Amino acid sequence: MTTDSSHQLWIYDTTLRDGTQREGLSVSIEDKLRIARELDRLGIPFIEGGWPGANPKDVQFFWQLQEEPLTQAEIVAFCSTRRPHVKASEDPMLQAILAAGTRWVTIFGKSWDLHVTEGLKTSLEENLEMISDTIAYLRSSGRRVIYDAEHWFDGYKQNPNYALQTLQTATDAGAEWLVLCDTNGGTLPHEISQIVGDVLKAMPLHTQLGIHTHNDADTAVANALAAVREGASMVQGTINGYGERCGNANLCSLIPNLQLKLGYNCLPKDRITQLTQASRLISEVVNLAPDEHAAFVGRSAFAHKGGIHVSAVERNPLTYEHIQPDKVGNSRRIVISEQAGLSNVIAKARTFGIELDKQNPAAKQILQRLKELESQGYQFEAAEASFDLLMREALGKRQQLFTIHGFQVHCDLVQGRVSYCSNAQATVKLTVNGQNILEAAEGNGPVAALDAALRKALVNFYPQIAEFELTDYKVRILDEYSGTSAKTRVLVECRNNFQRWTTVGVSTNILEASYHAVVEGLEYGLLLHSTPVLSN
Amino acid sequence: MTTDSSHQLWIYDTTLRDGTQREGLSVSIEDKLRIARELDRLGIPFIEGGWPGANPKDVQFFWQLQEEPLTQAEIVAFCSTRRPHVKASEDPMLQAILAAGTRWVTIFGKSWDLHVTEGLKTSLEENLEMISDTIAYLRSSGRRVIYDAEHWFDGYKQNPNYALQTLQTATDAGAEWLVLCDTNGGTLPHEISQIVGDVLKAMPLHTQLGIHTHNDADTAVANALAAVREGASMVQGTINGYGERCGNANLCSLIPNLQLKLGYNCLPKDRITQLTQASRLISEVVNLAPDEHAAFVGRSAFAHKGGIHVSAVERNPLTYEHIQPDKVGNSRRIVISEQAGLSNVIAKARTFGIELDKQNPAAKQILQRLKELESQGYQFEAAEASFDLLMREALGKRQQLFTIHGFQVHCDLVQGRVSYCSNAQATVKLTVNGQNILEAAEGNGPVAALDAALRKALVNFYPQIAEFELTDYKVRILDEYSGTSAKTRVLVECRNNFQRWTTVGVSTNILEASYHAVVEGLEYGLLLHSTPVLSN
Repeated sequence: MTTDSSHQLWIYDTTLRDGTQREGLSVSIEDKLRIARELDRLGIPFIEGGWPGANPKDVQFFWQLQEEPLTQAEIVAFCSTRRPHVKASEDPMLQAILAAGTRWVTIFGKSWDLHVTEGLKTSLEENLEMISDTIAYLRSSGRRVIYDAEHWFDGYKQNPNYALQTLQTATDAGAEWLVLCDTNGGTLPHEISQIVGDVLKAMPLHTQLGIHTHNDADTAVANALAAVREGASMVQGTINGYGERCGNANLCSLIPNLQLKLGYNCLPKDRITQLTQASRLISEVVNLAPDEHAAFVGRSAFAHKGGIHVSAVERNPLTYEHIQPDKVGNSRRIVISEQAGLSNVIAKARTFGIELDKQNPAAKQILQRLKELESQGYQFEAAEASFDLLMREALGKRQQLFTIHGFQVHCDLVQGRVSYCSNAQATVKLTVNGQNILEAAEGNGPVAALDAALRKALVNFYPQIAEFELTDYKVRILDEYSGTSAKTRVLVECRNNFQRWTTVGVSTNILEASYHAVVEGLEYGLLLHSTPVLSN
Repeated sequence: MTTDSSHQLWIYDTTLRDGTQREGLSVSIEDKLRIARELDRLGIPFIEGGWPGANPKDVQFFWQLQEEPLTQAEIVAFCSTRRPHVKASEDPMLQAILAAGTRWVTIFGKSWDLHVTEGLKTSLEENLEMISDTIAYLRSSGRRVIYDAEHWFDGYKQNPNYALQTLQTATDAGAEWLVLCDTNGGTLPHEISQIVGDVLKAMPLHTQLGIHTHNDADTAVANALAAVREGASMVQGTINGYGERCGNANLCSLIPNLQLKLGYNCLPKDRITQLTQASRLISEVVNLAPDEHAAFVGRSAFAHKGGIHVSAVERNPLTYEHIQPDKVGNSRRIVISEQAGLSNVIAKARTFGIELDKQNPAAKQILQRLKELESQGYQFEAAEASFDLLMREALGKRQQLFTIHGFQVHCDLVQGRVSYCSNAQATVKLTVNGQNILEAAEGNGPVAALDAALRKALVNFYPQIAEFELTDYKVRILDEYSGTSAKTRVLVECRNNFQRWTTVGVSTNILEASYHAVVEGLEYGLLLHSTPVLSN
């Protein structure tokens, strides 16, 4: 293993663009911003944000980042080369990419002659012109350019000379990186090695190559590794391998392979330990169940079954584990006896600014409660406000602002020939400041009705509640084989004018799960007003 | 691509042994027999059935196969070398493996000196003795032997001379195959290439090597490919990559890579087209949801999104697909999405066996309805049954099996000092075969109650409804800015004994959205019984 500090690799994340092509994955602007900030925090140097010329949602995303920029990462706007036979300066798509206001842009163009003549229906010369004109125009507008050579490997196999001409054209026009894309995803590692080696021989010295692979042959990670070993210095991929068809190269596998096994620098040393958390948080944001068997970051990645094996693992972990799990922020797990560690809780409390001692009975109490709730399906990774409330409770610092005695919800729907008429009502009963209150409200759904009734009941006592907004509401079914009787986990995100917070509720009854999350969301917002902030 | 018929590779399936180590996977003897017969039908030459010395269930499994043998495959019994300091002929574990009555047995032994001294707590010499004595005894009892060299790659890195001695010992004792196992799963492809090459140089000519890899570095498939390219001629893996931690090398990826891309013979030509079906059937038998994004066999593996792209794919598939999907028994799928054009609708209809003409007013009607529903937040990518119903409707082929007039749902929760009591009831009103029915039911959540009431109302008319199961229920909030008033999209997956189907519902009221999806799920299941199948 080498640890030569000159082994710098540039990680380029495309979760927000290519990752969102995954069937069944859809994200809001808020989701995209949250993911971008998480990737920034993780120390990813390049984050591809989207294609502002093709998607109005992406236009707004880039605007919002102009107002509140990322701290370290370069946010990159993505776009194709200009259309055939128009000037780059007159193509509205390129105006949109300039309006995104990023320092870096990625332009993708055709490498495969067949895609030029059959897909674009233009000449091979015009394609070179499109690459050159587009990149030169963006350079003259002050942008730095990464060039994605689409369908590179298939194109090179069919017509290597033309494929190389497209790269040379991009370099001559001012592209600083040439990224070889295996767009159809079927290339095997030995072919990648061969072709990347060929390209480096054919191109001028100091050409910077990148690699972008897909998992259609189930070798996306190995393909990227093969390219890096030949000399590629930028690696494109997505968190959790999200992407069209079989997905993109998974950065959660690539980064530890490159950094911990091959000695390249990808992320700052203190950040790679946050990889597992980032993987799980992002899977929550996009509302997909995390892959428990994922390499490095999956819940089962370092799971050991009980017995002699376990004590052997504990005596000498490296004889049974390919890396130490904490190097990527994951943990060893003994499958039979679920042993969540006290040190985990203490580390977690520290992230909320609370110093707990191992001897403090509150620490044990938090751990026990945590295990109890997790076995019921609670999950606090994306619901830190609920975890904060749990800690306050154990430490005797959870102020009782109101007591709820119960609720009722009623819904009905009359189906006519053309239209429906549906209606939801909720009633809540609670005590605030010694006063008993019964309040009812309507809503266009049962959860909205419940939320409205709670607010009506509380607003006279806590007028600041009028400022809270419920900004997101996510539902996940935990044991999907039980169908509609399955357990439901609800995440509710609220905000006031200053911050956002997320709470969680679990039940077989979706309304009960929602109720718990909504109530904690309101409670936490009120506590933020009345006591020092513990989390954000 | 070579198709030299001398390129014979031996596929060795260990789904029934190593695959069942996957956390959350458990199988009965019946399940194991069903899987073994499916693998036999697929043409897999070696099927590892289990460890009869360690597991009474496996003893019985082998007995049952003696009574009703497989047609072509060799069923293999698995066992460790004998214990230290006993004779092989007196080790009851080896008696159990002989009693399994297989022609072939696989014996695993230690390659890594540290595992001998620390794990087995015996001497390096005794470990060699254990390998030699065990294999020689089994050979003298008429068995053919495959030797699995456990922890091979890590062991070789630490002490190559000793590791090679273990292999030489196994060969000398009569093992016909030496299988190099990456037990901890962290080795990278270039290391595999290097070490397999070293071994072939060090061992006698005509030594037959096998490769057994795990996916802890997310490179299991590439690792096996690297070994084969160096000269290994047996490949061990599991269907769907099932296995401990991050799983084993996935045979559903390896077989097509080896056979269709590298030209090796693995399965008979007419069998590889059954790979997708085998993958899905086995996932059903082990009761795990299929990975929709799996390479080659996943439902999304050949999915294409909208517009110009689709007509380009149909004109010239190999410019957008790394292999033809039907070569592995999968199919191209046109994803019905926001950008759907008329050509998409027509292509999609074709996959349901319906030929639509561009001039057919039904085609335009379907497209219009699709766009209308999509703008309301419907999404048919994952809800093909709902799309099928929509097409039937436009074509006048949607049979009216029942008419629902409305529903009512009531939920209440009383919050006590310690526990909650929550309750959900639903009432539905419908007409079936001219009869008006009012039916009520309870459930542990409002959707379960609604589902139960609908089934109670329908089961007397359509008894087959008792066979349907709701297997998955997914909820997504669409416009999160509206918080709990947001639009909700619900996907419901049902199955009967033969197939699965998914339906969708959208509303601001989560109960109404669920209701629509559940009703369409029941309707579609009934139509599958009463009319020719349009989709699967």
